[in-house]
Amino acid sequence: MALIVQKYGGTSVGSIERIQNVAERVIETYKQGKEVVVVVSAMGKSTDQLIQMANDISEQPSKRELDMLVSTGEQVSMSLLAMALQQKGYESVSLTGWQAGIKTESVHGNARILDIDSRRINGHLATGKIVIVAGFQGITENEEIATLGRGGSDTTAVAIAASLNADKCEIYTDVTGVFTTDPRVVKDARKLEAISYDEMLELANLGAGVLHPRSVEFAKNYNVTLEVRSSIEKESGTRIEEEVAMEGNLMVRGIAFEDNVTKVTVYGLPDEMSTLSKLFTTLSDNQINVDIIIQNTNGNQTTDISFSVDSDILQYTMDVLSKFKSELRYEHIAYEEGLSKVSIVGSGMISNPGVAAKMFDVLAEGQIKVKMVSTSEIKVSTIVDSGEMISAIECLHEAFELDARQAVTV
Amino acid sequence: MALIVQKYGGTSVGSIERIQNVAERVIETYKQGKEVVVVVSAMGKSTDQLIQMANDISEQPSKRELDMLVSTGEQVSMSLLAMALQQKGYESVSLTGWQAGIKTESVHGNARILDIDSRRINGHLATGKIVIVAGFQGITENEEIATLGRGGSDTTAVAIAASLNADKCEIYTDVTGVFTTDPRVVKDARKLEAISYDEMLELANLGAGVLHPRSVEFAKNYNVTLEVRSSIEKESGTRIEEEVAMEGNLMVRGIAFEDNVTKVTVYGLPDEMSTLSKLFTTLSDNQINVDIIIQNTNGNQTTDISFSVDSDILQYTMDVLSKFKSELRYEHIAYEEGLSKVSIVGSGMISNPGVAAKMFDVLAEGQIKVKMVSTSEIKVSTIVDSGEMISAIECLHEAFELDARQAVTV
Repeated sequence: MALIVQKYGGTSVGSIERIQNVAERVIETYKQGKEVVVVVSAMGKSTDQLIQMANDISEQPSKRELDMLVSTGEQVSMSLLAMALQQKGYESVSLTGWQAGIKTESVHGNARILDIDSRRINGHLATGKIVIVAGFQGITENEEIATLGRGGSDTTAVAIAASLNADKCEIYTDVTGVFTTDPRVVKDARKLEAISYDEMLELANLGAGVLHPRSVEFAKNYNVTLEVRSSIEKESGTRIEEEVAMEGNLMVRGIAFEDNVTKVTVYGLPDEMSTLSKLFTTLSDNQINVDIIIQNTNGNQTTDISFSVDSDILQYTMDVLSKFKSELRYEHIAYEEGLSKVSIVGSGMISNPGVAAKMFDVLAEGQIKVKMVSTSEIKVSTIVDSGEMISAIECLHEAFELDARQAVTV
Repeated sequence: MALIVQKYGGTSVGSIERIQNVAERVIETYKQGKEVVVVVSAMGKSTDQLIQMANDISEQPSKRELDMLVSTGEQVSMSLLAMALQQKGYESVSLTGWQAGIKTESVHGNARILDIDSRRINGHLATGKIVIVAGFQGITENEEIATLGRGGSDTTAVAIAASLNADKCEIYTDVTGVFTTDPRVVKDARKLEAISYDEMLELANLGAGVLHPRSVEFAKNYNVTLEVRSSIEKESGTRIEEEVAMEGNLMVRGIAFEDNVTKVTVYGLPDEMSTLSKLFTTLSDNQINVDIIIQNTNGNQTTDISFSVDSDILQYTMDVLSKFKSELRYEHIAYEEGLSKVSIVGSGMISNPGVAAKMFDVLAEGQIKVKMVSTSEIKVSTIVDSGEMISAIECLHEAFELDARQAVTV
C-alpha cells in the first residue's frame, strides 16, 4: 500500500475552517487507498503569541523553557485535526514529537533529528488509522522536549517520510509550487513541474522561501521525493527529486532574488596570508553573516576586500569593524546601500560554461550594471542596484526561456 | 530540609502579572530555606477556550484527543512560571505530567493517579532548583496523555506531596481559607484555623467549593497536611489535618448550603424488597445523581419514596421516570421546586447525639420548616424552602457559636 506523508504549515491550519479543509484534503488521499501520516505546524500566529508572552515575562527566556512553551502550539493543531477527521468518520490519532519517537540532539531551540523510532506510528497505520504528528519537535536522550528551529515542520515531515520509506512527502503551503521566479514580480513566471534537490537548495538558500534548505538537504540525503503544492488549490505542485527524469538541456531552472543588500568595502588591508581569515573570523565571531565576498589585490603591500551583508545589520557591522581596526590594520571603510541580489539557478549550467557569460551579456544589454559576482556549480549571483532588480529579473527570465509562453517539458 | 508543595489555580496564574506574583510567593518560601515543588493549573479561561475550539470542530470530540488538547494549558503556564523565576534569579525547571512521572489509569478525561515515579523531581530538587509540575495530567501505561478531571490539579499537588513525603501541601486560591460558612452570605462567618479531613470532605461534598473532595480524600489516605490560603493576601490559611490538635468540644465546625434543589416524590410503588433498588438503579443507569432519599411505608401494599435532585435535571428525571413507569409500577409522581439544602458539619457531633435535635430546635424556633433530613456521622443536612435558606444559616451559625465574635481556639 502506498504511504504518503503530508505536511501542512501554520497558515493551512490557521483557523477551525482551515483545519476542516485540511481534513478534507487528507481524506481525499486516504480514500485513494493510501496510508497517510500528516505533520502539522502550530495554528497561524500562535507560536508568535506564545513567544510574546515569554518576552513579556523574561528579557531572555531560557531556551529549555521556551521549547516547553512553544511545543504546545503543534499539540493544539494536531489534536484539533484528529478531531476533525474523527468527526468526518475517519479513525485518526495524534502524536506529540516524543510519542512519535522523534529523537533529537540535546539542544534547545535548534535541535537536529537524530533518529525516528517509528514503531508507534507504524502500529497505528497497521490498524488503518490516519496518524497526525506534531511538527517542529522531538525528544532528547534525557527526555527533554526540544524544538527543531526554523523550517522544523518541513524537516519533521521529510524525516518521517525517510524513516517510513514513504512513497512521497507532500509539503502543503500557500503557493501552488516552485516557480521560475516570484510570480508576484514577473507575471510570466511559470510553475515548474519538477526540480532537482540541488537546484531547490540553491533557490531556497537564495530566498525563495517555499521550503527550508534543511528539509531539502534531508530529502536529498535520504532520497525522499518531495512535492510542494497548495493546501487550497487542487492542481498538482512541483516535484523535487533526483534529476534522472529531467531534461539536461534546460540550463537555467529559475531566478531567485532578494533586496536590502549592502556592499561593504574594507580598503588598505595588509596583503598577508592571514588577512582574509582574520577579517571574516572577526565578523563571524560577532554573528555577522556575510554573503558574497570579493578580494582585489592592488599590486602594493595592501589589499581591498568587499563583502555584502543584509542592510539591517550595516550599522552593527560598521561598529564591529571600527572596534577591531587596530587588529585588522585597514585604512578605511566604505559602503554602498540600496543593492539587490539576482541569481540564476540550474543544474544544467555545470556542463555549460557559457551560462554566466550569457547572464552578464543579457544584463549589459539591459543597461544593468553588475556590482559583484559570485558563482557556484549550479548558480550565478549578481549584485545590482535595487532600482534595476525587477528589470534584471525580467530580462533574464525571458533570455533563458523561462516564460510560461515558451512551454518546456521538464 | 523542609519540603513544601504549593498549588496555584487558574485564577492565580491568569495573566503575566499574576504569574509574576506567584513567582514572588514561591521565592518567599524558597528563601526560607525550603525545597519547593509548585503545581500549576492552566491560565484563567484557557482550558475553556481550548474546549470551545474542540466543540467548534466536533459534536463529540474523542476524549483521547481532548486530553491531548487541554493538557497544553498547564504546559503553557508552567513554562511561563519557570521563566518568571529564572528572570528573578532563581533556578527553576518545569515538568509535564509524563516528565514528572505521574502515572495514571488508562482512562481519558477522568483518570486517577496510580503512582508517582518522583526520581526526576528529586533529581532537580537535589541541585537546588524550584520544580514546577503541570497539574491535572499524567501518563498511562501506553504512554498516552491522560487528564485527571475536575479538581485534578489539587489532586496532583496532594499526590506529589504524598510521594515526596512533603511537610505540607499548600493550596493557593482566591479565598483566604475555609470559613464556618460562606462569608458572602453570613457577615460573621469566621475563617477556621484548622479542620479535619472528614469535616473538609463533608463541606466539600456539600458545595463549599474550596477543595475538590477527591484531593481531600487523597490527603486523608496519605496523611498529607493541607493548607488552603490566598494567592494574594499574605495571612495564613486553614490547615486540614488529622484532628489530634483540635478541640473535641467544638461540635459543629461549619455550615454548608446549596440552593437549586428539587424534591421528587414517587407515590404508590409496590412495597417489595426490590423496589428501592429498582428505582435508584434506573435513575443511576440514566446518569441521574440523587442526593437525599426518604422512604415512607404507608401500611398498605404500596410505598412512597422521595428524593432530591438538582433542579436543572428535573425535567430529564421526570422523562426517565415516565419512560420506565410500567417497570417501576408506581401510581403517580409529584415534585416540589425552589428548595435548598442547609447542612451542619463537625466531627464533634459523633459523640453528641443531641446535635441534630438542637439543629431542628433552632430551625423550629426560627419558624423554618424542614422538608427532608439526612444524617451522617459528622453532618446533618436539611432541605428547606429557598426563601428561608439564609435565615436558616444565620440562626444555626449563631446557635452553634460559629460567629467571629465568639472566638474559639481550634
